Amino acid sequence: MTTTPSTPDTRFDAWADKLGHRFDGELVIGGNYTSTMRHGNQIFVSGQVPRVGTTVMVVGEVGHDVTLEQAQVGAQICAMRALALLKSSLGSLSQIEQALRMTVYTRSSPTFTQQSEVADAASQVLHDVLGNAGKHTRTSVGVAQLPKGAAVELDLVVAAATNR
Amino acid sequence: MTTTPSTPDTRFDAWADKLGHRFDGELVIGGNYTSTMRHGNQIFVSGQVPRVGTTVMVVGEVGHDVTLEQAQVGAQICAMRALALLKSSLGSLSQIEQALRMTVYTRSSPTFTQQSEVADAASQVLHDVLGNAGKHTRTSVGVAQLPKGAAVELDLVVAAATNR
Amino acid sequence: MTTTPSTPDTRFDAWADKLGHRFDGELVIGGNYTSTMRHGNQIFVSGQVPRVGTTVMVVGEVGHDVTLEQAQVGAQICAMRALALLKSSLGSLSQIEQALRMTVYTRSSPTFTQQSEVADAASQVLHDVLGNAGKHTRTSVGVAQLPKGAAVELDLVVAAATNR
Repeated sequence: MTTTPSTPDTRFDAWADKLGHRFDGELVIGGNYTSTMRHGNQIFVSGQVPRVGTTVMVVGEVGHDVTLEQAQVGAQICAMRALALLKSSLGSLSQIEQALRMTVYTRSSPTFTQQSEVADAASQVLHDVLGNAGKHTRTSVGVAQLPKGAAVELDLVVAAATNR
Repeated sequence: MTTTPSTPDTRFDAWADKLGHRFDGELVIGGNYTSTMRHGNQIFVSGQVPRVGTTVMVVGEVGHDVTLEQAQVGAQICAMRALALLKSSLGSLSQIEQALRMTVYTRSSPTFTQQSEVADAASQVLHDVLGNAGKHTRTSVGVAQLPKGAAVELDLVVAAATNR
Repeated sequence: MTTTPSTPDTRFDAWADKLGHRFDGELVIGGNYTSTMRHGNQIFVSGQVPRVGTTVMVVGEVGHDVTLEQAQVGAQICAMRALALLKSSLGSLSQIEQALRMTVYTRSSPTFTQQSEVADAASQVLHDVLGNAGKHTRTSVGVAQLPKGAAVELDLVVAAATNR
């Protein structure tokens, strides 16, 4: 019996299956901005809310009308969206040399202080899909509101494997 | 009849006229920090509130005592301030090769969820003034408070056209 | 009589003495992320709360149960933690060529608008320890909550003196 070694792209697909969503459709954005921008071999990814198609999947204030567990699923969807954009931009997630920075914003009730635990769920996706290339620095904050009432939003900076 | 082609600098002046403010005076800041910092050809711009001279023009909580439209004007003033700093630093806005990242913080009432629409107004300024070089990745969040009670604040990272 | 010229490392120690804390122990973090990440000669530092050992020293909402002065001490501890991580990563703080960007998040009561004054305290640490290399661009925002209920959090990007 032989097994095919997993790759970042197959592990991405496995995480999509686990979440029960598809992330390879068009990722529409409005306004005069763009979802990814490359400079040298740094790639910046715009802030992602847990949207699938046109629906924000996890809406509300974490610690009040959204639980930690729901927020963690939201953070995973955000991370998958960011990876989907990088996959689309680079052709393959194996072209990511190293994740550099992730900032995770959790819409927080006045007493909710587990922003790091929400962010952990997104960090886990990066680690599971990208392996060592998924290690990153991180900032987790609790904010008053997010676009469309989303419970969580994150942005990302990564390094691509090769310069253009 | 001949017309002079517009440039980033003339389009910047046109936007200043449209807003009815001047942005070419000194932009004083306090503390042990600086308004712009260049590393290689990346330039970081400090967070800008909608200040003209010594007055913050748009103060308050968006969705409560500040309307979306007022917040959008505030975001445009912030974007113009960031561009004014880059113009001062580079000599001309035509030296900007590419905007890379903008983060827009909107001071939000508990129910205000149009942070993206506030940020759109700032993105429009970058696009109108810089053209394709104004495309950027963006993160929009809603925060509890901002310095001096400002309704909006943004920061920026751009790439300069040539290395030093 | 001869005096030894101060260095970034000795000035770091002097600031640690002034604050009455030690910052050279292990800085434990959880989750699948890392405290610093280098790309080229940029180094990203993860968001730091004012933790010493396992205790967050300044907890609460600034303007309500935390004073400006307490928040400023918190910001100084955050800055020292960030510098401690860079010292550990680079061997010496003299290897920092230039601080580039600091973002300071202050957990703010609805009426607290002195986020810049909180951030000034962190900027002062960078300036005192690193000299001209400590100048940086800065963004100060007021947020609803922070991990572990911390009153302040900051992250940092710096340039190292030499490429690897």
